[in-house]
Amino acid sequence: MGKLTVETTNHRYDVLIGPTTYALFSTVYKDLLTSADRIAIIADEKVAAIHLPLLEESLAIVKDKLVVKTIPAGEACKSIATYADCQSFLLQQGFTRQSLIIAYGGGACGDLAGYVAATFMRGIRYIHCPTTILAHDSAVGGKTAINMPEGKNMVGAFHQPSAVLFQTGLFSSLPSQEVRSGLAELLKHAFISNEEWTMQLLANKSFTNPSEKWLTEELLKGIQVKAKIVAEDEFEQSTRKFLNFGHTFGHAVEAACGFGKLSHGESVMIGMIYSLQLSEMMGLTAKTLTEQLIQFANEHEYPLHSIHDFSFDEFMNYMQKDKKMSHGKLNFVLLKGIGQPFVTEVTREQCLRAFQELTTRTEGMS
Amino acid sequence: MGKLTVETTNHRYDVLIGPTTYALFSTVYKDLLTSADRIAIIADEKVAAIHLPLLEESLAIVKDKLVVKTIPAGEACKSIATYADCQSFLLQQGFTRQSLIIAYGGGACGDLAGYVAATFMRGIRYIHCPTTILAHDSAVGGKTAINMPEGKNMVGAFHQPSAVLFQTGLFSSLPSQEVRSGLAELLKHAFISNEEWTMQLLANKSFTNPSEKWLTEELLKGIQVKAKIVAEDEFEQSTRKFLNFGHTFGHAVEAACGFGKLSHGESVMIGMIYSLQLSEMMGLTAKTLTEQLIQFANEHEYPLHSIHDFSFDEFMNYMQKDKKMSHGKLNFVLLKGIGQPFVTEVTREQCLRAFQELTTRTEGMS
Repeated sequence: MGKLTVETTNHRYDVLIGPTTYALFSTVYKDLLTSADRIAIIADEKVAAIHLPLLEESLAIVKDKLVVKTIPAGEACKSIATYADCQSFLLQQGFTRQSLIIAYGGGACGDLAGYVAATFMRGIRYIHCPTTILAHDSAVGGKTAINMPEGKNMVGAFHQPSAVLFQTGLFSSLPSQEVRSGLAELLKHAFISNEEWTMQLLANKSFTNPSEKWLTEELLKGIQVKAKIVAEDEFEQSTRKFLNFGHTFGHAVEAACGFGKLSHGESVMIGMIYSLQLSEMMGLTAKTLTEQLIQFANEHEYPLHSIHDFSFDEFMNYMQKDKKMSHGKLNFVLLKGIGQPFVTEVTREQCLRAFQELTTRTEGMS
Repeated sequence: MGKLTVETTNHRYDVLIGPTTYALFSTVYKDLLTSADRIAIIADEKVAAIHLPLLEESLAIVKDKLVVKTIPAGEACKSIATYADCQSFLLQQGFTRQSLIIAYGGGACGDLAGYVAATFMRGIRYIHCPTTILAHDSAVGGKTAINMPEGKNMVGAFHQPSAVLFQTGLFSSLPSQEVRSGLAELLKHAFISNEEWTMQLLANKSFTNPSEKWLTEELLKGIQVKAKIVAEDEFEQSTRKFLNFGHTFGHAVEAACGFGKLSHGESVMIGMIYSLQLSEMMGLTAKTLTEQLIQFANEHEYPLHSIHDFSFDEFMNYMQKDKKMSHGKLNFVLLKGIGQPFVTEVTREQCLRAFQELTTRTEGMS
């Protein structure tokens, strides 16, 4: 089993990855569970339909105080309506400040349940049991949020979990789109931290068809990158912004396509290519690197055609609503080289040129 | 002008009280205002109707980036619907993490606008310009919240303001119910901290008809008590609970009567009498003290009849939903003597006896 401790200003918690992490509920986390007066599993309805018995059995020691609340699957749960619904549910079930929430689902479920926990009676404890590869990113670092009609993750809070438990066996039921999505964030962690590791990943022919063992090791490396940055800069004043590599254009692609059509990681892959394109145009990274990433993404069936489906203005419109905007300026995380991210202002004109270049380069790709 | 600095773990800000504090916007707070890319006044609609020009004139130096959002008056604004509406408004107006919110209204407006600020893009800065006496309590300490159908202040966050500016001239337009409401919290601050001061207040015949000068001095004393406690225990793990003196039964009275019918402070006055009744029954405080407070409250037209309008079970039902509940037990702040608050568990039977005793003692009061 892989284990990593995340340290932030006021909190310290473990992230555990392996085939039997839920067994820890009756050992390492027994005190945490018994100290809670009520416990709610807030579960993605699709995950609950397949995997709820597994989690419930692991929580047998506290079954008397356990209730389950299912929420819409995927990104759809991150609405004001589901948020309010969960809060009312907890109140009706007699939850107090001594209660505990367990998020059971992917990143979206963790974001929603984490935000509920962050604000129920001004904050109660929660444990995240992520069920997707993608969630190796969002489950660590304490960012919680819901979406607004105007944009993604626009309302939320920083709230660190008490523990994060990945049971890797659950990944085997993930659809291939979800696998691609999660591994794009893994690649992002490589790009912003380590050239050798990045090159290994780009050379990996079975990248989107991973073994459980490889996945455990690689996700732990990804989480390590994230945990180090979160420890340095919990509230995103400086280096934490690097984690947004690929996200400015990526979020715009995700929003333009309609949330849920393209997965988050697929969008981030396109966003990383876009950021490399900008870096290349600024003379910072090699043309061959941009081309290598385009080739890699295309081979592993990331949907590069998506950028042909909308005009530049449509993407630009979404980018201008980005949280990373500052005083009306567009900010991007670019690379001075692999492992050397930095934040810089980019003009509308540069954005347009990168877009045009990229549509040319990805012509005819699926 | 009175000034007091509040210090919490990660924040430090000033609370200012006086006839011309808004003049500070163009001096002391000029840098704060100019550092924001957008500024929104979130204003109670009743306050805006009378006093908006005053605030807008004080913010003339930033009028180009200023927008105004009015919200329902009083407690009605603390709904999920108004919360979502404000978040959408800010997004549509192009607000970013560098933007600023100014709350303009009483405690409810501050709670709502503060919670919007706490969670907009995971937290932006806000200034509170309280327009009621009651808000001398809620404006200090960083507790923000909205109500749920199931109970008051059930969802929220801790988020400290960047400054709190009381312009005391605004108090002259307050209805007498609001004056009574605010002064009850002042009396609470006295009860939990200082016997001599408490006795002075109880002997003050013009308590609910105060001069601006007296009010400035007394509110500063009240804020001092609160600021000291908040500095010790920002997240209500220990001594901050003392500020809930009078609030367990008070919230139940407020909820039973229907929010807005009875003001918050009027309900807290009744709650303090109830807590003294419990303290007296436990042999901690003198019977004469309970009687003195009942007498005082009746003379100053606090609506003591309210406890005759509902059954004990109705009040009990609301008390059981209180945030201060822990593991199914009712917790009360009681007094070992004036200035000596402590938290203790109280049984349902003790609650019932106190209720019965109090209904007898307040028989026929208005």
